[in-house]
Amino acid sequence: MAAPAVKTDNATPNFLAACRRQPVSHTPVWVMRQAGRYLPEYRKVREKVGFTGLTRSPELAAEVTLQPIRRFALDASIIFSDIMVPIEGMGVDLEYAPGPVIGTPIRTLKQVEELRPLIPEEGVPFVMEAIKLTRAGLPAHVPLIGFCGSPFTLFSYLVAGKPSKEFSVPRAFAQAEPEISAKLMDKLADAMIVYLKAQAGAGAQALMLFESWGGLLGPTDYARVALPHVKKIIDGLKDVGVPIIYFANQCGGSLSSIAALNADVIGLDWRTSLGGARKILGPHKAVQGNLDPAHLFSSPENLRLRVDEVLADAGPGPGHIFNLGHGIWPETDPDSVARLVDYVHARTAR
Amino acid sequence: MAAPAVKTDNATPNFLAACRRQPVSHTPVWVMRQAGRYLPEYRKVREKVGFTGLTRSPELAAEVTLQPIRRFALDASIIFSDIMVPIEGMGVDLEYAPGPVIGTPIRTLKQVEELRPLIPEEGVPFVMEAIKLTRAGLPAHVPLIGFCGSPFTLFSYLVAGKPSKEFSVPRAFAQAEPEISAKLMDKLADAMIVYLKAQAGAGAQALMLFESWGGLLGPTDYARVALPHVKKIIDGLKDVGVPIIYFANQCGGSLSSIAALNADVIGLDWRTSLGGARKILGPHKAVQGNLDPAHLFSSPENLRLRVDEVLADAGPGPGHIFNLGHGIWPETDPDSVARLVDYVHARTAR
Repeated sequence: MAAPAVKTDNATPNFLAACRRQPVSHTPVWVMRQAGRYLPEYRKVREKVGFTGLTRSPELAAEVTLQPIRRFALDASIIFSDIMVPIEGMGVDLEYAPGPVIGTPIRTLKQVEELRPLIPEEGVPFVMEAIKLTRAGLPAHVPLIGFCGSPFTLFSYLVAGKPSKEFSVPRAFAQAEPEISAKLMDKLADAMIVYLKAQAGAGAQALMLFESWGGLLGPTDYARVALPHVKKIIDGLKDVGVPIIYFANQCGGSLSSIAALNADVIGLDWRTSLGGARKILGPHKAVQGNLDPAHLFSSPENLRLRVDEVLADAGPGPGHIFNLGHGIWPETDPDSVARLVDYVHARTAR
Repeated sequence: MAAPAVKTDNATPNFLAACRRQPVSHTPVWVMRQAGRYLPEYRKVREKVGFTGLTRSPELAAEVTLQPIRRFALDASIIFSDIMVPIEGMGVDLEYAPGPVIGTPIRTLKQVEELRPLIPEEGVPFVMEAIKLTRAGLPAHVPLIGFCGSPFTLFSYLVAGKPSKEFSVPRAFAQAEPEISAKLMDKLADAMIVYLKAQAGAGAQALMLFESWGGLLGPTDYARVALPHVKKIIDGLKDVGVPIIYFANQCGGSLSSIAALNADVIGLDWRTSLGGARKILGPHKAVQGNLDPAHLFSSPENLRLRVDEVLADAGPGPGHIFNLGHGIWPETDPDSVARLVDYVHARTAR
């Protein structure tokens, strides 16, 4: 394979260039849940405010979003929030204990019909405020990512009513009540389109959909149950003009369906080979991932070996954003994150 | 593809023929956790005895093993037990609450060294007794499967100390302490070899290894951390003369490593395409699986469509054992299981 061309346009941050499969001066790197409990400065903020309060305070959400950027040479930032936040804006009563717990799990057509359409400026104005404040605090080379949950993932929480190991209730519901399930996911897709547009309008420079529970579905169910609603969202965003990232967690068996989506970047978990995925996804998609969060517990020497494996798997071509394959664990040593970021940069400098 | 030859040897049960990729008169079917809470007759037994008591009573274990065979036209039986049962025979203090909880999680070399080698006849004689009693109660065309957990899966429980969503503790431990981890898994492999040999000696006609947590590892880690110990067990059983089934749960990304194992059958979860897997595993392995347990909640009509999808994916060649892609859920309607079994038989009769 030919070596990538040297990046010449210093005005485009490496992260955005990689999203568009353009040359970069180094492989950009960020970390899912990089604003989180593994950072002492985050824990300090959380001593004063609960999780819901934090998502609802633009100042504090911006502060914790900026914390990892101050500490590490990260190439992207993601607004601190939660995929269930806009669901509250649709009239669903929920709290975090610590995972999302729904007052009345959604199991009937009537409940689906009663869900309010989301009006982001009324339902969740604090998210857009947080995005504006964060943008003002970020250096120009660090773009800000806005995000939402994908319809099937949100559906799983809404029907289960609480976090669950196997999510057997929503999985059984999706089979027993396919029409109600599709109606709910369609309504969620409409809400996520306006939500992501509002985030881009407030300054988000890329938009990410989290299919956190996509791996609950086999490939035929994924294509039948989850994919149409993801496609609706992504197609609904085509005029927004910012890169779209779809994190297809544990969906390695469904990549041939995912290849048909108009996403710019596919995020992959650590069980899915980046190189194998690139072959299926084709040359018009960038990939993001996929170091196992467990590898941040390796010795510094072994961590470098694991990073080398990820980089070799991704290959030398453009269009790779380095990330973990899932969110960072609260027990992680921040120094290990610093070593990761610096090593990815040093190893890929062009 | 040519139609499979008609089976002529009526003395070989369909399940064992399929394990060896020989012609069958219908595709054999059984269900992981077929002796379990979804059956009222099982719940009735459990009213009188706890889970541990049930695994330790040969009479009651045989009774619940035979219950689904009386009710459904299943083609195989699996002895009622738990993968952690032999671990108790190695001197580890554990109870079920309801998942396995270890008195003192294993985290040091000293603890690994203090584990007793397993002597099945002394540590867990009741398992072999249960196998003998069950065999005496089974019809000749329904073979009995013995089983154990794979070393990485047992390691995950032993280091975590309790069931966990992400098993972050053992996954971090495997990276931070690779030598202690390998020593523990090697010791577990030795124990599982003698344990499975004892089960075969007592009458088990096939042996299955459950890699329930293999999907926690990415492909390179799977090959480095888990696979060598599985290989040791399977190679250690080569003179036993019964088919070996390896259930590689959520290991779809690791099939090219798994192809090198001397297992007769690879069990696959519902996220891994049977047809795709067969291409990677080659013509010398049978496959087992992989209906999503959620599909037993479909309407009878949709269940038939889902079964058709699994059968089409497996292809018409020999060497497919129909099963779920994971254990049956306690909330499942037994009538749905009856419909599944009868439809697989009707649809594949040759």
